[in-house]
Amino acid sequence: MSYTLDKRVDGGFEETIEQVTVSLQDEGFGVLCDIDVQETFKKKLDEEYRQYRILGACNPALAHEALQSELALGALLPCNVVVYETDDGGVGVSAVDPKKLLSIVDNPDLDSIAADVRSRFENVLDAL
Amino acid sequence: MSYTLDKRVDGGFEETIEQVTVSLQDEGFGVLCDIDVQETFKKKLDEEYRQYRILGACNPALAHEALQSELALGALLPCNVVVYETDDGGVGVSAVDPKKLLSIVDNPDLDSIAADVRSRFENVLDAL
Repeated sequence: MSYTLDKRVDGGFEETIEQVTVSLQDEGFGVLCDIDVQETFKKKLDEEYRQYRILGACNPALAHEALQSELALGALLPCNVVVYETDDGGVGVSAVDPKKLLSIVDNPDLDSIAADVRSRFENVLDAL
Repeated sequence: MSYTLDKRVDGGFEETIEQVTVSLQDEGFGVLCDIDVQETFKKKLDEEYRQYRILGACNPALAHEALQSELALGALLPCNVVVYETDDGGVGVSAVDPKKLLSIVDNPDLDSIAADVRSRFENVLDAL
């Protein structure tokens, strides 16, 4: 089992970022964090890198429920969706698989929340 | 094995955030993302919640090396350090254990990077 749910898309990079953001909103996720990896590597390392963005997605109600059960869980939040240029110049989208991610936490109360987030992420990728 | 490295500290909440940020800088990490969970829950859910911040820490050189080996790894980055009020009104700091986090990725090239980040996070907590 991979640690991501992946999709290859046909659109351009910025257009895909917009579509992912809208699809996340449709599934109840806000983007709380948006890291431009290309820009960060240029600025901090003076290295050229492919276009690559990390969108930190959070469904507040589900996050609240999960944190009530597991205080330190913020160490694994938000759940990321990354958008990047592929080696052949296309655009790839990978969402972390919440079930795989939360498998490192020994708390069965989180199982149903992880399954819910996973199902929503599948819908986000299907909508692209 | 827990998924976090934890420390209870004596200082106040905001002071701890500042100390964590400085300690992370001393170990080569910038904070690329800073999520105020209390504020988010108030704004999105109208729920009162304890003070809780998620700091997304990134060492650009190590992140660059890791992404060269594993393109989708951004789905697990940055590595978080969370600062929160404990149930008895103290302040707790929990850093994600990078070795545990990267255990869900089947890529032995990442083992040494995970060990390096873990060692740096141990130094960050020791410095508090």
